[in-house]
Amino acid sequence: MKKITLLMVALVMCAIASAQFAGIQQRGPQEEALPEGFKPSATNIFLAQYPAVNATTRQVMFRVNAPTAQKVQIDLCNKKYDMVKDEKGAWTCTSDPQVVGFHYYAVLIDGVPVMDRNTDAYFGSNWKSSGVEIPEGPEGDYYRFNKNIPHGQIRSLYYWSELNGLERHVNVYVPAEYEQNPTKKYPVLYLLHGWGEDENGWSNQGHMGNIMDGLIAAQKAVPMIVVMESGDIKTNPDVRKAATNDVTQIYVKDLMPFIEKTFRTQADRDHRAMAGLSRGGGQTTSTVFPNMDKFAWMGTFSGFFMGMRMGGNNAAPAPDMKTQVETSFNGVFKDAKAFNDKMHLLFISTGTAENSPKAAVDALKEHGIKVVFHESQGTAHEWLTWRRALNEFAPRLFK
Amino acid sequence: MKKITLLMVALVMCAIASAQFAGIQQRGPQEEALPEGFKPSATNIFLAQYPAVNATTRQVMFRVNAPTAQKVQIDLCNKKYDMVKDEKGAWTCTSDPQVVGFHYYAVLIDGVPVMDRNTDAYFGSNWKSSGVEIPEGPEGDYYRFNKNIPHGQIRSLYYWSELNGLERHVNVYVPAEYEQNPTKKYPVLYLLHGWGEDENGWSNQGHMGNIMDGLIAAQKAVPMIVVMESGDIKTNPDVRKAATNDVTQIYVKDLMPFIEKTFRTQADRDHRAMAGLSRGGGQTTSTVFPNMDKFAWMGTFSGFFMGMRMGGNNAAPAPDMKTQVETSFNGVFKDAKAFNDKMHLLFISTGTAENSPKAAVDALKEHGIKVVFHESQGTAHEWLTWRRALNEFAPRLFK
Repeated sequence: MKKITLLMVALVMCAIASAQFAGIQQRGPQEEALPEGFKPSATNIFLAQYPAVNATTRQVMFRVNAPTAQKVQIDLCNKKYDMVKDEKGAWTCTSDPQVVGFHYYAVLIDGVPVMDRNTDAYFGSNWKSSGVEIPEGPEGDYYRFNKNIPHGQIRSLYYWSELNGLERHVNVYVPAEYEQNPTKKYPVLYLLHGWGEDENGWSNQGHMGNIMDGLIAAQKAVPMIVVMESGDIKTNPDVRKAATNDVTQIYVKDLMPFIEKTFRTQADRDHRAMAGLSRGGGQTTSTVFPNMDKFAWMGTFSGFFMGMRMGGNNAAPAPDMKTQVETSFNGVFKDAKAFNDKMHLLFISTGTAENSPKAAVDALKEHGIKVVFHESQGTAHEWLTWRRALNEFAPRLFK
Repeated sequence: MKKITLLMVALVMCAIASAQFAGIQQRGPQEEALPEGFKPSATNIFLAQYPAVNATTRQVMFRVNAPTAQKVQIDLCNKKYDMVKDEKGAWTCTSDPQVVGFHYYAVLIDGVPVMDRNTDAYFGSNWKSSGVEIPEGPEGDYYRFNKNIPHGQIRSLYYWSELNGLERHVNVYVPAEYEQNPTKKYPVLYLLHGWGEDENGWSNQGHMGNIMDGLIAAQKAVPMIVVMESGDIKTNPDVRKAATNDVTQIYVKDLMPFIEKTFRTQADRDHRAMAGLSRGGGQTTSTVFPNMDKFAWMGTFSGFFMGMRMGGNNAAPAPDMKTQVETSFNGVFKDAKAFNDKMHLLFISTGTAENSPKAAVDALKEHGIKVVFHESQGTAHEWLTWRRALNEFAPRLFK
């Protein structure tokens, strides 16, 4: 009868061996105390001490277990840091002070860029990347989990796209009250990701659930449904060359009908908004302007805008801004009054540490177009800029 | 006015540069045609051709771009494959024939185990790993997306745990009809992950959504809610030494009240089930047996069971199986009639290519305990075994 126990022991061993092939032993001990002032990044997987962040100096300490490598570096915000190996085979380095917010980074193992497996995997630059979060003080509370308010749900759905001939994935935020009001209908915000990211970006990197929960609980924003889709990233044979027009068809012909069939939506232009970040801002303009019978609220966060189009035209000589205002997007701005009457909100935002669309905004305003312009102080083309943009944008919708 | 366009061009360049630091250029060209018979693995990120799988020979071709590395290997199912470098710096190899189903693997860059960034990131072995899927024929349709049936939703929720003093994440599957029946209440299956995995395993690696959608659409299973939680993985300071008792408290005191407050559940023992795979099977027995006033249906898939306990006792001498049956789990099986009267389903499953609990099952049966025993032919301690287990288990619930 000992046989059974031996078999069982063997099964444990087998399970452990099968788990170990992926290298749990190489993950290395996690128990070392962190240096004074450093705490594990909010992006770390459970038990992982590194990357560790000093909230005061805004420096990051990295530690990578790689006993057999010849050279290990961290590639963070366009600077490479050489790491130093200790006697156990762990490599460490400490970064320069960073801007607050979320940053992607890579580990270079003998020059090969890989994920640091100590953090969650974030889809960026068209593959899974590591991320580190430099924490803000209380001013960042709006995107953190608040245990004292009701929480919405982010629902993961797959649906069949006739247009693409494949199943597509979409994440849909519903407000906390959605379940408690089984007949109430809600307005919908279509919220697009940027280049190289996907439908999970807004919830993972952007913490949109916490932001919306907070705005709705404080009655700053009306309860709404927020739809986050993969756009053309899972359809286009080369997303880097994708025309923005294709995605319009996906949104209008595939996604919107599916959402309106599946959720209790207020299915008219006065209750539909679209916004996007970076490339998703460009997709917002190219989707909304030709479809103003379907959308009356829009936002472009650090987005491609006037004078700047996808598809290789970036190097083309610029028309002057006045012409630009009159001719962009098939002349949608030409008749300012007509535009203002139809579009309830045109929201344009940027970080002050990235190139600004302010001149375009000024030209639009001069022409009489109503624009809400938001600048995120001190932030670049990164997620903190977009969290702040959403936090400013959502309260202005559907009112 | 050319300044604006130049600014805009700079912004594009900046966005692209910021995206490139994580190495999109190093991802390498994806346009090469695959060798005859090979197709991209179902686990690949969009556009990624490799890993590529030959469904007939069940071999996998890997390709890793690593021009600066000295040695690159693939570590798949406990075998290391040396890769060969081409003139562009891409390394390739072809594996031996594999068992059908999902397998984790790692890339070794100069001996350092990292993710292959061509696949989605799956949480396994306590960190993010790559995975490859060796496809089955039509017999695998039950876990694939079926465009002709209604689909449930997997809802991502965060809730505050007083017990842990932190927010916890849970995924909850609701059947397609849930929204259409705003007053109907549903039975609940608590479905646990295994060692080194997390609350996303059943939906990502296990395709539980597709499995449940299919069973419910075919009226093989009753519509039910399925709750997938992280267990103790995000609470315990050393999950590898965790006592299974702790997790019981999380389930019974934190999770169940939250689920029953948030969803329309039939909140009694006749409509509550728990099942888990591997270590989650052990957690199922240690949670359900002392709480048979709360659960009447249970399953342990490749799970730790009689004679085999967590916490370092695996090497202890085995009692004989008759004693085991009478004393295990505080003697829950001793009075077979009493057990059978109370427990509507005790389901135990295994793969035939892993060590089997059959002897324990036989001893239980001999003692008069009603057990449903399922064997997955030809599969090991892996996800295909557990997809099949769920597909056999769920139809037997709540009937």
